[in-house]
Amino acid sequence: MTIETVSENRSHSGTQGVYKHPSTETGTDMTFSVFVPPQADDRPCPVLWYLSGLTCTHANVTEKGEYRAACAKAGIIFVAPDTSPRGEGVADDDAYDMGQGAGFYVDATQEPWSPHFRMRSYVERELPALIAEHFPADMDRQGITGHSMGGHGALTIGLRNPETFRSISAFAPIVSPLNCPWGEKALSGYLGEDRADWREYDACALIADGARADALLIDQGTADQFLEEQLKPQLLAEACKDAGIPLTLNMRSGYDHSYYFISSFMADHVAWHARRLKA
Amino acid sequence: MTIETVSENRSHSGTQGVYKHPSTETGTDMTFSVFVPPQADDRPCPVLWYLSGLTCTHANVTEKGEYRAACAKAGIIFVAPDTSPRGEGVADDDAYDMGQGAGFYVDATQEPWSPHFRMRSYVERELPALIAEHFPADMDRQGITGHSMGGHGALTIGLRNPETFRSISAFAPIVSPLNCPWGEKALSGYLGEDRADWREYDACALIADGARADALLIDQGTADQFLEEQLKPQLLAEACKDAGIPLTLNMRSGYDHSYYFISSFMADHVAWHARRLKA
Repeated sequence: MTIETVSENRSHSGTQGVYKHPSTETGTDMTFSVFVPPQADDRPCPVLWYLSGLTCTHANVTEKGEYRAACAKAGIIFVAPDTSPRGEGVADDDAYDMGQGAGFYVDATQEPWSPHFRMRSYVERELPALIAEHFPADMDRQGITGHSMGGHGALTIGLRNPETFRSISAFAPIVSPLNCPWGEKALSGYLGEDRADWREYDACALIADGARADALLIDQGTADQFLEEQLKPQLLAEACKDAGIPLTLNMRSGYDHSYYFISSFMADHVAWHARRLKA
Repeated sequence: MTIETVSENRSHSGTQGVYKHPSTETGTDMTFSVFVPPQADDRPCPVLWYLSGLTCTHANVTEKGEYRAACAKAGIIFVAPDTSPRGEGVADDDAYDMGQGAGFYVDATQEPWSPHFRMRSYVERELPALIAEHFPADMDRQGITGHSMGGHGALTIGLRNPETFRSISAFAPIVSPLNCPWGEKALSGYLGEDRADWREYDACALIADGARADALLIDQGTADQFLEEQLKPQLLAEACKDAGIPLTLNMRSGYDHSYYFISSFMADHVAWHARRLKA
């Protein structure tokens, strides 16, 4: 598998790169960013995946996420994929919460989405193989985090693959697509109307159905405009309580849904993953 | 003097704001950003000014500068002005290095620039008065920094006003507009062809003519594409040596001219100013 270097910049004693490759899963070119810390000059480093939210590409967190200082300190490779396939031949929707920029980390089964919208398999299988091949990554030590729709992605991908992802956290995640307008619209569109098919894409349902994690870390702003209608962290708190999963849910007073919030707590999350990944 | 709040976001335990006001100096609306750290809840805080480079607005450093963690730790207010007047009635040039986005922190004397291009007086007088009126700032403790064209601005404004700016640093600054293509184009356009009129806008000439500072801090990437032709830090090193000004010139191996470079050393600069401002 080949990748094309879009850009590489020296930053925080490491290298911030942006790369492009033809994806067999999505049938499109996909762009992603990777920060390689200075420790990788000497040894393979653990990997922290960051899945982005609605409307985002790899670029938002790469420019605004403020993760490099913490990753350079801990010796962690930080990988940020795109949020969907893109391009002229790819189905789209006029709304910001469906189609391009809104892949919801599912493998779509419904037309017109199913040919290209395979972000679950892309993030779970294709891109990790590419990272393992092209970067100094210790793939036995991977953690996953994300924001909003990407927090949903991190939780569900992490919970479904506990052997791969040894640490899971999220910023203001959608914790239950079964129980919010964003999720109901996206999953009915991508997966059809049978809600039983949605459960593997719903963190709370996965836990109710038996998925487990050693611990979960969530940060959530109290001034987040999407808190009440879309995000509903209390549903995850209840699911974790019922399942005996230790959840650290930090409600952050006055913070909103933006990267001004994410960047404020990014170093905490990187350090949390670093401890669990023995970075 | 009134200001309009464009946005305010909680970040790093403080508030990142963007504001707009009608400027009497430029005759236009001007936008700027201010980060107020949590310490300002209890007491006035020192101010660090950041002047941006060619093509930038306040937004570049606000989104990519990674200064908030360091300013929140040290208790420093961070102010980022725009780089020029803007708008339909304002003169412009097709090139990126002249006109809107390229004010060079001068008071223009030449047509068509002179009516609006008054960034020297705007940054030296009008905006500080506005900051003093509207923010919990200790205006007796101000430092100044900047990048590229804004590094030139920080050095020249700082050197001309040692009573106001008690600490001066820069990232990859234009140290001598008299001796580089960017500077020669801009200063001849804004100030006319008499090079004697340029000297108060040239850090090296200001020092040769008697300006002094307790210390200067410069970070410069060795892979900066503008290093040889435009930036020439060795000219500042020579001027400082002749004048007995202690200059710390950190040549950073492999770093370029981008915010990936600036953000890598921003915390160092904030801490350097904090020590001198007794933050």
